[in-house]
Amino acid sequence: MVIYVGGTSYKNRGMFLENILNESNTYYNSIDKCLIYKKPTPIKVLNVSYPNNKSHLIDKAVYSSISTLDYNGIYRGKYIEFDAKECHNKTSFPLSNLKEHQFDHIKKVIKQNGIAFLIIMMNNEFFLLKGEDIIEYVNLYNRKSIDYEYLKDKSYKIVESYTPRLKYLDAVDEAYFKEN
Amino acid sequence: MVIYVGGTSYKNRGMFLENILNESNTYYNSIDKCLIYKKPTPIKVLNVSYPNNKSHLIDKAVYSSISTLDYNGIYRGKYIEFDAKECHNKTSFPLSNLKEHQFDHIKKVIKQNGIAFLIIMMNNEFFLLKGEDIIEYVNLYNRKSIDYEYLKDKSYKIVESYTPRLKYLDAVDEAYFKEN
Repeated sequence: MVIYVGGTSYKNRGMFLENILNESNTYYNSIDKCLIYKKPTPIKVLNVSYPNNKSHLIDKAVYSSISTLDYNGIYRGKYIEFDAKECHNKTSFPLSNLKEHQFDHIKKVIKQNGIAFLIIMMNNEFFLLKGEDIIEYVNLYNRKSIDYEYLKDKSYKIVESYTPRLKYLDAVDEAYFKEN
Repeated sequence: MVIYVGGTSYKNRGMFLENILNESNTYYNSIDKCLIYKKPTPIKVLNVSYPNNKSHLIDKAVYSSISTLDYNGIYRGKYIEFDAKECHNKTSFPLSNLKEHQFDHIKKVIKQNGIAFLIIMMNNEFFLLKGEDIIEYVNLYNRKSIDYEYLKDKSYKIVESYTPRLKYLDAVDEAYFKEN
């Protein structure tokens, strides 16, 4: 299903991945391992009505765009920001999944000494791809997608489990804290 | 003006302070001094209609609550989270301005080695009150508000200017990075 908002097309974006990441964060936050949340989806309110004295209802609003990544917070004292991408193409990850302002934002987070990455779901596997590696790829190759084999090689595999559903902080440890 | 949402009362919350903080963040982010954003207001979408094939409209939604603080990001490599509170009482800051889950959240950010504070506007002055000092106050005194004089004494004064409108990162330097 494709939903169009003011001329911009939105795919029915990664709800499965979003849901299991939210569950994972709820678990991780509950054991004080980190403090990471999904940001609310930005909505532009156009009209509010007052059905009665004690309530009000937004009766006209549209989704608006976000220039940052969807998840952020703190882990091991470091600022973390990431986005989740479900990729339905089996052979390559289209870079069009990453908006230009999101790409710029990843650079800014790294410049501030923060951690920025993507979690990509592809062929029922989960990968953490470091922001640094995305920037390097874009700088080195004039390509519109990342091959599955290249992704598998460059990224950090995320293991599924029961709690948390995705042990993505293990992949963060592997990618960013290995020397400690 | 008081707006009621599903039985919960919402004051017409700090739009002036919010606006000048957003302007300040836009400036600070543009010069790469930090990367701090206001989180979108969480809205629960109840119904979406499709006026035509190429657009959709949210025609039923309500504001929902947020358990974190409104602003977060990274500054000098550290995770920062804060909330903005306009106080219209001239003699004391009512602690009811801070919801219990927000108070708990401040404790969690500090536990993760992050920086958490409030920016309070009171008597046309602006103060940064450290999360640690709020926790200490609540633990020491069985009171429902913080006296203006106590607030002035314990907090860090935020200077107004043209760009940024509020030089609140100077107060963050003073409060958290002075030994560096």
